[in-house]
Amino acid sequence: MEQPGHGGNVWLAEQIYRIKKEHIIDFSANINPLGPSPKALTAIQQALPSIKHYPDPEAGGLRAAISHTIGLPEEHLIMGNGAAELIYALGRVLRTRRVLLPVPTFSEYAGGLAGVDLVPVPLDRECDFNLQVSNIARLLQSGDLVIICNPNNPTGQLVPGDQLRWLLRRARELGAWLMVDEAFMDFVQPEQSLLPDIPRHSNLIIVRSLTKFYALPGLRLGYLAAAPDMVQRLTDILPPWRVNTLAQVAGLASLADQAYQTSTRQIITAQREFLTRGLAQIPGLRPLPAAANFILVDCRDSGYQDRQIQNYLGPRGILIRPCHNFAGLSHNYFRVAVRLAHENEVLLQHLRELLA
Amino acid sequence: MEQPGHGGNVWLAEQIYRIKKEHIIDFSANINPLGPSPKALTAIQQALPSIKHYPDPEAGGLRAAISHTIGLPEEHLIMGNGAAELIYALGRVLRTRRVLLPVPTFSEYAGGLAGVDLVPVPLDRECDFNLQVSNIARLLQSGDLVIICNPNNPTGQLVPGDQLRWLLRRARELGAWLMVDEAFMDFVQPEQSLLPDIPRHSNLIIVRSLTKFYALPGLRLGYLAAAPDMVQRLTDILPPWRVNTLAQVAGLASLADQAYQTSTRQIITAQREFLTRGLAQIPGLRPLPAAANFILVDCRDSGYQDRQIQNYLGPRGILIRPCHNFAGLSHNYFRVAVRLAHENEVLLQHLRELLA
Repeated sequence: MEQPGHGGNVWLAEQIYRIKKEHIIDFSANINPLGPSPKALTAIQQALPSIKHYPDPEAGGLRAAISHTIGLPEEHLIMGNGAAELIYALGRVLRTRRVLLPVPTFSEYAGGLAGVDLVPVPLDRECDFNLQVSNIARLLQSGDLVIICNPNNPTGQLVPGDQLRWLLRRARELGAWLMVDEAFMDFVQPEQSLLPDIPRHSNLIIVRSLTKFYALPGLRLGYLAAAPDMVQRLTDILPPWRVNTLAQVAGLASLADQAYQTSTRQIITAQREFLTRGLAQIPGLRPLPAAANFILVDCRDSGYQDRQIQNYLGPRGILIRPCHNFAGLSHNYFRVAVRLAHENEVLLQHLRELLA
Repeated sequence: MEQPGHGGNVWLAEQIYRIKKEHIIDFSANINPLGPSPKALTAIQQALPSIKHYPDPEAGGLRAAISHTIGLPEEHLIMGNGAAELIYALGRVLRTRRVLLPVPTFSEYAGGLAGVDLVPVPLDRECDFNLQVSNIARLLQSGDLVIICNPNNPTGQLVPGDQLRWLLRRARELGAWLMVDEAFMDFVQPEQSLLPDIPRHSNLIIVRSLTKFYALPGLRLGYLAAAPDMVQRLTDILPPWRVNTLAQVAGLASLADQAYQTSTRQIITAQREFLTRGLAQIPGLRPLPAAANFILVDCRDSGYQDRQIQNYLGPRGILIRPCHNFAGLSHNYFRVAVRLAHENEVLLQHLRELLA
């Protein structure tokens, strides 16, 4: 049976390795290792009797809560069945000819943009895959769409907000679009987000996931922020009732749980440092600097390729993300999520056994 | 505040009438009045720890179970975040110029088919809105898509399978498509379904909802059956992970609960008769013959319009579906779901008080 190519497929991993989900430590998906907020779980329990009703088609309560949290009027926001649904819909609405895409990055942008002229902009390994916005600006033409994942999956690099704002102005002058996927921004300092720039820039689109930071990927929940007419055009082409009731109530409860948010940021910050240090001490592994809740590891000097390391760890109940199927990467890279201290220690221990 | 225009918006009804959801009897959405199967609720509880993982992207277990239940190979099936997502996607893949649509019918077909030449085929009130397939065949041209909701929402009429098979052959000769929405077919004799015809007819597409019969609309779950290449084309344009984990496990458990399915059919059959008889005895109300779990009521002789009856019942905690915004209907119609005996009695009692 083929091994998981994408991250987070514990369903397939269960079958391949014959290990129950509960005994798998999943470093292959970039999900908050605390699991969902207890408040979200309570809200789901309380809402179970409501699944016999259709969802609120507007996801009104949740949209209002997000609006209040991020300080953007509701007319700038649209909710989706995961961010992926919104990314796919955006590809249909924008009808751009050319899309500039720094690579390596999240593979689903290409899936949502079938038929366009996708121009990959290679990021430089020598600079830890750091994005130079001037490289994008140089290629930019009228009508283009630039997609930037920030922080970038899988490289972990953050482009400072000010650099993106400069690129945004350049794009505006040329009549081009900038889409920023901030799926992992909640793990970083929020002041790097471009959300406050939405009202002043009609060429800016921001996609946000609520399932990584709030550990709800099984429920599907994301939103998009843009100019009101863009939000209207997306609403027109998307099906109704697309955000299920339990995702709506879990999202609402998660947004209100400040203690969970604070703990998450503290744990991720501390454990990112711990895991990066631990990985760097293993012969042949070079973890790249990481801004979010995952770390890209260069394993070319280890004598092992991503698949081999995956093969070693999988039967031991540990999932990692091999990176050969990211455009711009190779079998010399794998990605791991930052998890809880004892879980990170288990990962390091197994890697030491394999490589030391 | 505007009253609910579509059915099943208990969230809006709560705000308008200031009545808690738990105290509302919802006749406005065509949902199994038993609520979800106890087995589905147990499966959801057991799967709650899994929402921190991505869903199975293939919804593999559920698709296999449906394949087994309906006797169609899996390559003919694609799962969706509710049937609405699949209907919308179909509109994009088929790229038909002209769509023949008997009216009145479910309004979301039009939403999913923006940009096509939508040809309404009026159903005749004198014949209880019964569909004459010869009327469709007469209009049919090469490349057309015919959409038939069977049994039809909101009229409750069932087109016998044999008549649809005749139309299917005519469509095939002309190179036209037939899409049958069987969202309510589980409430009827299953032998009327066209699912067994799928392998022999590449111009046939069937959409099925699992949320009406299994009372899971808040979770979103539907599937589409068609030729394998059509399934592949739909898979290519739809986002990944679109069916959330709880919908997958609830669907699986519901399909396995035979006792629930039998009870549901018995209750609906008995109560449809009870409610139809009760409505017919109220001066000015004429319920139309109904094949599924809802009844269209002609109220032109009652001295009240749909909105007025809605206004009377709403503050009393009873939701009905006014039908003026269905193409081909008017303020002279409303629709009610068939519910449990005591609930139907409450509805009849209030209608008697208003109209007798």
